[in-house]
Amino acid sequence: MSEDAESEVSGYHKLLQELPRTGPGTKAGEMLRRYWHPVCLSADLKDIPLAVRILSEDLVAFRNRGGRPGLLGIRCPHRLASLEYGQCTDDGLMCSYHGWRFDGLGRCIDQPLEPRDSALKNKIRHLWYPVEEWGEVIWAYMGPDKEAPPPLPKIDVLARADGEVKIVVGDIRNYSYLNWMENFADMGHATVLHGLLIRDIPDALKPFNDDSIKNWTPLPLEFVETDYGMKTVSVLDTGDPEIKFVNTWSLAMPVHWRFSGIRSGFPPDFTDERQEGGGMIRIIDDTHFELFRYNLFRKGNFPGTFLFGLPADLKGTAARKPHDKRKYSGWEGIPALEDLVLQESQGEIPDRRLEHLASSDRGVIMMRRIWHEAMEAVANGKDPKGVDRKPREMLEVDTYHGHIKASEIKIGPENMPPSTNGRGLIRDSRGNLVFA
Amino acid sequence: MSEDAESEVSGYHKLLQELPRTGPGTKAGEMLRRYWHPVCLSADLKDIPLAVRILSEDLVAFRNRGGRPGLLGIRCPHRLASLEYGQCTDDGLMCSYHGWRFDGLGRCIDQPLEPRDSALKNKIRHLWYPVEEWGEVIWAYMGPDKEAPPPLPKIDVLARADGEVKIVVGDIRNYSYLNWMENFADMGHATVLHGLLIRDIPDALKPFNDDSIKNWTPLPLEFVETDYGMKTVSVLDTGDPEIKFVNTWSLAMPVHWRFSGIRSGFPPDFTDERQEGGGMIRIIDDTHFELFRYNLFRKGNFPGTFLFGLPADLKGTAARKPHDKRKYSGWEGIPALEDLVLQESQGEIPDRRLEHLASSDRGVIMMRRIWHEAMEAVANGKDPKGVDRKPREMLEVDTYHGHIKASEIKIGPENMPPSTNGRGLIRDSRGNLVFA
Amino acid sequence: MSEDAESEVSGYHKLLQELPRTGPGTKAGEMLRRYWHPVCLSADLKDIPLAVRILSEDLVAFRNRGGRPGLLGIRCPHRLASLEYGQCTDDGLMCSYHGWRFDGLGRCIDQPLEPRDSALKNKIRHLWYPVEEWGEVIWAYMGPDKEAPPPLPKIDVLARADGEVKIVVGDIRNYSYLNWMENFADMGHATVLHGLLIRDIPDALKPFNDDSIKNWTPLPLEFVETDYGMKTVSVLDTGDPEIKFVNTWSLAMPVHWRFSGIRSGFPPDFTDERQEGGGMIRIIDDTHFELFRYNLFRKGNFPGTFLFGLPADLKGTAARKPHDKRKYSGWEGIPALEDLVLQESQGEIPDRRLEHLASSDRGVIMMRRIWHEAMEAVANGKDPKGVDRKPREMLEVDTYHGHIKASEIKIGPENMPPSTNGRGLIRDSRGNLVFA
Repeated sequence: MSEDAESEVSGYHKLLQELPRTGPGTKAGEMLRRYWHPVCLSADLKDIPLAVRILSEDLVAFRNRGGRPGLLGIRCPHRLASLEYGQCTDDGLMCSYHGWRFDGLGRCIDQPLEPRDSALKNKIRHLWYPVEEWGEVIWAYMGPDKEAPPPLPKIDVLARADGEVKIVVGDIRNYSYLNWMENFADMGHATVLHGLLIRDIPDALKPFNDDSIKNWTPLPLEFVETDYGMKTVSVLDTGDPEIKFVNTWSLAMPVHWRFSGIRSGFPPDFTDERQEGGGMIRIIDDTHFELFRYNLFRKGNFPGTFLFGLPADLKGTAARKPHDKRKYSGWEGIPALEDLVLQESQGEIPDRRLEHLASSDRGVIMMRRIWHEAMEAVANGKDPKGVDRKPREMLEVDTYHGHIKASEIKIGPENMPPSTNGRGLIRDSRGNLVFA
Repeated sequence: MSEDAESEVSGYHKLLQELPRTGPGTKAGEMLRRYWHPVCLSADLKDIPLAVRILSEDLVAFRNRGGRPGLLGIRCPHRLASLEYGQCTDDGLMCSYHGWRFDGLGRCIDQPLEPRDSALKNKIRHLWYPVEEWGEVIWAYMGPDKEAPPPLPKIDVLARADGEVKIVVGDIRNYSYLNWMENFADMGHATVLHGLLIRDIPDALKPFNDDSIKNWTPLPLEFVETDYGMKTVSVLDTGDPEIKFVNTWSLAMPVHWRFSGIRSGFPPDFTDERQEGGGMIRIIDDTHFELFRYNLFRKGNFPGTFLFGLPADLKGTAARKPHDKRKYSGWEGIPALEDLVLQESQGEIPDRRLEHLASSDRGVIMMRRIWHEAMEAVANGKDPKGVDRKPREMLEVDTYHGHIKASEIKIGPENMPPSTNGRGLIRDSRGNLVFA
Repeated sequence: MSEDAESEVSGYHKLLQELPRTGPGTKAGEMLRRYWHPVCLSADLKDIPLAVRILSEDLVAFRNRGGRPGLLGIRCPHRLASLEYGQCTDDGLMCSYHGWRFDGLGRCIDQPLEPRDSALKNKIRHLWYPVEEWGEVIWAYMGPDKEAPPPLPKIDVLARADGEVKIVVGDIRNYSYLNWMENFADMGHATVLHGLLIRDIPDALKPFNDDSIKNWTPLPLEFVETDYGMKTVSVLDTGDPEIKFVNTWSLAMPVHWRFSGIRSGFPPDFTDERQEGGGMIRIIDDTHFELFRYNLFRKGNFPGTFLFGLPADLKGTAARKPHDKRKYSGWEGIPALEDLVLQESQGEIPDRRLEHLASSDRGVIMMRRIWHEAMEAVANGKDPKGVDRKPREMLEVDTYHGHIKASEIKIGPENMPPSTNGRGLIRDSRGNLVFA
């Protein structure tokens, strides 16, 4: 290896060490702070405060009795008692220790043990972050421009009215969120990992399957950078040479993933199911995150979710062997569990210096480059990819999924090709957004 | 902020970082080592050794078969086996590994595997500390002058014969003992924290309550330095302008707290109950301590304790909500639990640089100053506050609690004003110690 | 103490700090890597991989479908997923994430997602170690000369055909393996620690006991360096001045211990029982190890094991006292448990600077010297004690145990004296190896 190559490698390793960092003052943490992040579900904020760790910061979310949500530093600035044990009041959150009360902008609005004419409270400004409540989710913006943040991008599924959205939270992982994101940018793993056990198609699912596509292993994959992040596209032959089957998986910076269909193109075959799915991540800290998974159920959809979510007992469909003493035994057979086991097994923050990347890692390499460029953009005082200062009705994320004429296929960074026949988020022949 | 103010602040922060340290060689640890500390109850030393960590030192307490207690370093100096698994003998403690035997002065008195004429054992002097057994408690002195320690100060309640003393141990906390002490020096918190839920007075308690005092919120508080430490005094109006109600809470350096009455002046009202209470701390290390709580029950006393001790299930009287996932749910309503929750929530060792102290923190500020001066005294080779080289019959600690003529009120460092009508530890009109 | 003595002491302390280290690149770890180590039982390798940590390295053992065992680094070199969740194939182990497959020499033999003509896999060489399967145990060699390792030494008991060998694994300790080895080099502890409770001899054991020997306390002990490590020999009087009782305990470098007899000479008396026992250690890391205990049962042997193994409930025969809150209560009375309690109590890695060695520690001192010399030999590019490049049928370890004529006693580094009457591993009068 030449010296140049060595220094190239060591620069890459430096990047890989910086990328999983989430705390304030870290290069990647500063990048992450230019986006809105999910905090909790709207339904989670009732009449008591909720301790919530986001981007390595310990915060407390609450809803005042007027119904307005807020997000503050968890420790009362008086004598550092936790506001997790505070009291929700008409206009803010009161520390239970000495009664200091704060509004959602961090202003101290009462100090009951101080003299009535004391001006001390006017000198206190507690840590606060702007929040928005939209799509049954509480969102926060933790950037330095928090007084004038960019508008909240409204991810398409949550903005849709043509079906019922169900959001499931509470799946907390003990490793870097990048293990998850890289797994999603690397659809090639599906043909190996999710093909370990050949599963029978359940009867309830058969009507949604399309048996015409057989060439799923290994998946032919294209990786395309987009304005919101990147997407992976797979174009597959059908029986008819004029008709192709196209499937699309997208990552929207920095914590969103999106796909269509209950199988999302995974083996053993494909489906014309119109259900859309995806999710987003609450980044807790460098080595923990929580998944917010959602599905849009429209009329005629299969009522289950992606093959079919993490089983409560963390057990796959493989037989459990008495001599299997591993943390996860009998784990093969459920894709969501297979992903968990392999992602976790990579380590809390994998030591990427030990990797040997191959051509099938093009998606991972693209994702790291895009995340890196976003990090550099912020370090240079610019907005990173996907931040838009103009209000938008919806953040459009490609999830085309369905059959298309071979002559019309056009894979590139723009949104999906015209079609009245596709599935997922598509444009019609005039370029307008439609949902097939 | 001026540069002087900055350096003043940083000096204060240095102090606050030094103060919670307890180990040998730390400035605060050296100060603590000039006082006697509780080790365990007399009843805890039976026929097996007891591992006990005090001031960050791992020790073993034992009682030889002659009945005499001792306190040694936990590791046998031979090959470092733990003396926790040693054998109590007629004259000392024997290591179970090779039979080396030690007396209470750390002298090695037997090495059964060595030749009979070996002089090796005379060269061994194991770590030892002097202990005293008094008031049903084993006490230790860990200072450099351990060969000639100051006399054990006999805290008043434990020295009393006019009632039955009950001591309860085993409540171990996982944060700095100073969180506890500061909470006690800060009686203002009572009107907020202990007033979160307005409790009904239980029928059994009603005879001891005095409904004449209504102005308990916020408590008017005076903080007074004393020879043993400090005290907090509250003087309240009654219906009669000539009669005041006085309540006193005391801290005796460095691990004792004392008060009178089952409610000790806490809302919703006051009581003439004569029961006396308090306790002391076994400092385990910087972030752990054990409470030794005691109560003196005299004839006619309410048979319960301070509102009413920590509940075994760590549950308050507030309704538990199904959506409450906090470590302590439904915690409000029991003062001892409220104190635990808020003290623990401040953190193992709170980062005091983040505090914003207010006028209601005068007691906390006084306590820190007194502790600081004690630390400086020891650093300058002097005895700290409360150490008395002359034998005393009793360590008198102010806990005046009751009605007094307005004209006789005199609040100051000396013990409580003359009264035949007060409660707790008082002096009569001739200055002699009496118990009303 | 003179300066020379001080520097001698500090050199000794440096040694004692180096000795417990096991990782690659440490002086002691390099020494340990010149020996074969037990990995697991043959029976442990079935159809799924087994994560196994040895000498501070995380590895995965597996058996391919052809029956051949292998040992690889646990993390797939591709993207660091754990091979613990890999799949055993006909010819190797396949990572479940992207299908990279490895043989037992660490060669990458398939990358299913790469183009068929890719040469990438030829550039991959994964961490591997040679293994051998012998005596129902999988063994590994982790030295730098792993391509041409010394032959596996075949410890005598496992090579024997004159009885049934039973191996028990799974007893994992959370302290340095040297605590265990030193305990075995220090037979003097037996007369104290294992004599704490005078045990009745169970009826089933009585036929194997020899009541003629009474002088067991303290044991007269000789320590002798041998070619395989060291041995401890005890020569005791019987009723007949011409007949002595000889007992031998051996340590074979670096992880083997051997003795004869169910009591192995421990009080209250001795036995002519011919059963042989011992074991070896899987060194997990600096502070963890697993015991592989074995016993050879021959016709007429007592069917139990060494007094009588670690009880499942970790309880001794001493009465449990309600006030005993120690981790091990009522622990006295079972030698294997007594050893566990005292060894563990010395600490994960005892701070040997605090020791005070005595004349009864001659065995421990010899063992440290031998281990030290082995460490220095390796640092100087030589093979350490006990490594033999010539194939041997058996590693002979002295365990003489029985009566002998006083005139024939000869204690020295060579194997045991001629005898047709001894027990354990002995030589006959012509110097040939026999098993009595």
